[in-house]
Amino acid sequence: MSVDPERHAMKMAKKKASRDKIMATKTDEKGLIIVHTGKGKGKSSAAFGMIFRCIAHDMKCAVVQFIKGGMSTGERDMILDKFSDTCSFYTMGEGFTWETQDRTRDTEMAQAAWEKAKELIRDESNKMVLLDEINIALRYDYLDINEVVQFLAEEKPHMTHVVLTGRNAKEDLIEIADLVTEMELIKHPFRSGVKAQIGVEF
Amino acid sequence: MSVDPERHAMKMAKKKASRDKIMATKTDEKGLIIVHTGKGKGKSSAAFGMIFRCIAHDMKCAVVQFIKGGMSTGERDMILDKFSDTCSFYTMGEGFTWETQDRTRDTEMAQAAWEKAKELIRDESNKMVLLDEINIALRYDYLDINEVVQFLAEEKPHMTHVVLTGRNAKEDLIEIADLVTEMELIKHPFRSGVKAQIGVEF
Repeated sequence: MSVDPERHAMKMAKKKASRDKIMATKTDEKGLIIVHTGKGKGKSSAAFGMIFRCIAHDMKCAVVQFIKGGMSTGERDMILDKFSDTCSFYTMGEGFTWETQDRTRDTEMAQAAWEKAKELIRDESNKMVLLDEINIALRYDYLDINEVVQFLAEEKPHMTHVVLTGRNAKEDLIEIADLVTEMELIKHPFRSGVKAQIGVEF
Repeated sequence: MSVDPERHAMKMAKKKASRDKIMATKTDEKGLIIVHTGKGKGKSSAAFGMIFRCIAHDMKCAVVQFIKGGMSTGERDMILDKFSDTCSFYTMGEGFTWETQDRTRDTEMAQAAWEKAKELIRDESNKMVLLDEINIALRYDYLDINEVVQFLAEEKPHMTHVVLTGRNAKEDLIEIADLVTEMELIKHPFRSGVKAQIGVEF
C-alpha cells in the first residue's frame, strides 16, 4: 500500500480522460446478437442475469430452453411464479441428448423450439429473447446453422437483443454476432469430487 | 442431417454411461470459493444469476458491491424491492476509481466493504455471499490480498459459498478457489461504436 497518492490520482485522471473520450464515440443503439460459449460455467447464468435486468427495467423478454438439462430450474420457477407478465418462458428440450438417445425425437423437439423462438423474436414487443443452449442443438445438427444465421441476419427486428448460449458455438454464428464471450474453465470442483449443489449449479 | 440414427443412439448411450460413472464419484458437498474473472462480459451477471438461484430456492444470501460502477442497478433495485428478506444488499463503492481519483477515500471505502463482507460471511445463515468487483479493490491494493485469502481459508464457514468477481483476479486467490471461470472477450460491440444499452449492460 505504498503507492504515492498524487501519482495515483494523476494516473487515474489520465485513465478517466481516455475512457471518457472513447465512450463519447459510442452513440449507436441497436439490438445485439450475443453469444455465450466455452467450456466454463456461467454461460446460462450470465444470460439469465440479463433477463433479470430486463425484467427489472420492465422490458418484455422471452426465454426458450432448447435443452432442459440446463438445470436452471430455480430461475425458471422464479420467472414463472413472479414475472410471467414480463417474461415468457418455454422449456422445449427433454434433457441432454445422451439421456434420450433418440435422434429423431430430439430433432423434432429442437425444430419445435426454433419455431417458437422465431415467433418470439418476430414479436417486436420482446426486447430480449434468450435461446438457452441452442448451440447444443446446432452442434448435433438438430437445427440447421444456415437457417438460424439467415433468420437472425434478415428477420431479427433492429432493436431486439437475441442471446444464444451453449458450448461449441459454430463459427458462422460467431461471425454474425455483435458480442461474444467465451467462458473458459480454469478450475472446477467436480475434479476434486464435489457434486452439483443447489444454488450453484441448479 | 445425414447422421445414422442407430450410430447416434449408440454414441449417446456410451456418452451417458461414461457421464453417469463420473457423476457417481461426485458425492462431496461443501461451500465453494468461486471466482469470475477475465476481460469478457458476464462476470457479475453470472454471479447475480447464482444469487437469483439462491433466492428462488429460498436460501439466504448477501451481496456487497465493492465498485458501484458495476452498473447492475437493475438487479440491485429488483433485489431491494422484492427480495430483501432473502438477500441483503450493500453498495459500498463509489464508482470506478478513475471517477473519484482519491486513493485515500477509495481505500477507506474498500476497507469498509471488506468489514461488511466478513460480517456477512461469518453469519452462517447466509448460504452464499457475493463480493462483486472485489478484484478491482485487490488489484489497486485498496485491500490486502493476504488478508482476504487468509480469511477465506480460515474463517469461511464450511457450507457457505463465496463468489468473487472482477477482472485481473490475483494468483493467490485463484490458488485457494474451488471454481474459477475466465470470461474471455471474443467480440465486443463497443468496437463498432455501439453504446452501453439498458438490459444488456445495466
